[in-house]
Amino acid sequence: MKQSLGAKTIAAPLPAWVIGTYSPEGRPNAMTASWTGICNSIPPSVYFSVRETRYTWDCIQANPAFSVNIPGRGQAAVTDYLGIESGRSVDKLAKAGLTAVECGSVQAPYLAEFPLVLECSVVKTLELGSHIMVVGEIKDVLCDADLLDDKGKLDVEKLKPFSYCPGDGRYHGPGDVLGAGYALGKDIGK
Amino acid sequence: MKQSLGAKTIAAPLPAWVIGTYSPEGRPNAMTASWTGICNSIPPSVYFSVRETRYTWDCIQANPAFSVNIPGRGQAAVTDYLGIESGRSVDKLAKAGLTAVECGSVQAPYLAEFPLVLECSVVKTLELGSHIMVVGEIKDVLCDADLLDDKGKLDVEKLKPFSYCPGDGRYHGPGDVLGAGYALGKDIGK
Repeated sequence: MKQSLGAKTIAAPLPAWVIGTYSPEGRPNAMTASWTGICNSIPPSVYFSVRETRYTWDCIQANPAFSVNIPGRGQAAVTDYLGIESGRSVDKLAKAGLTAVECGSVQAPYLAEFPLVLECSVVKTLELGSHIMVVGEIKDVLCDADLLDDKGKLDVEKLKPFSYCPGDGRYHGPGDVLGAGYALGKDIGK
Repeated sequence: MKQSLGAKTIAAPLPAWVIGTYSPEGRPNAMTASWTGICNSIPPSVYFSVRETRYTWDCIQANPAFSVNIPGRGQAAVTDYLGIESGRSVDKLAKAGLTAVECGSVQAPYLAEFPLVLECSVVKTLELGSHIMVVGEIKDVLCDADLLDDKGKLDVEKLKPFSYCPGDGRYHGPGDVLGAGYALGKDIGK
């Protein structure tokens, strides 16, 4: 039996990723976003949505590039913190003890302490109402070497990515591996 | 020490949600997408990206509405299956034993067996390269009543949402609650 909850942004799992930008003055800034995800394969592209009152929007307008800093387990508190305060009034990176490093492929900072980083160049923006969607082309992906298996592939069980759900307002840790894509369901209907 | 992996769509966690549409002939169709997520708060909006060769794109052009069917644990195999075959040649819903039900607020089918459903009306499309991004306004959210707590709020631990990671090509189950948003990180820097 289904119950109507009304028109709301309830969905799970959602990412909680940290968007790194340079301010108009060239200072590193970071903001957590859950309205974010992969949106295109060729060229590889990612988006995040931001309110135009947010400091990150000033930053994107001044410097149209960003990093997506994907946290691992143990980083939920710092990820949450970067979504609470504004970089307009507070040096969030100093307060959180985070290190900004210049990306190799775009003019944006990434956070050294975050294990997986997408370096992105803004290609499109789209006004959707409360938020502006910023689409970036992924120019490079950086990963902590100790998260790679012996074939150089990301070991997600070592990364331990967590998710956020606006339905209960909580972060949820990673669980077991359930199976491989394009394999787990291949025998259905046979 | 960070290692470059090149320009790729590696990220985690990503959703694996099933997009429900009506075909040009009015037949229910369903396709799994990981290039999907929430993208706006007011109006509440969600997107998915689709290759223009996919049957779902034909469906959206004929009937610009869709459902987002969010699976719970135990549904990874059927979710994977709906991403493998094409509804152009196969009645995937019949083969997977799924039941299409007409949405209450938009002209699209949802899948009765999926615990959480977003009913959406297409508001924008955006060409990004290999994929077209389809943005929908969420007109209603339906949830299985047994997943709601006594305040009528979604209990994510009962939903047991899982994620997909293109970095390792595997589905990952849900884990522990790590803490509440806008709370877990509030003491950082104090």
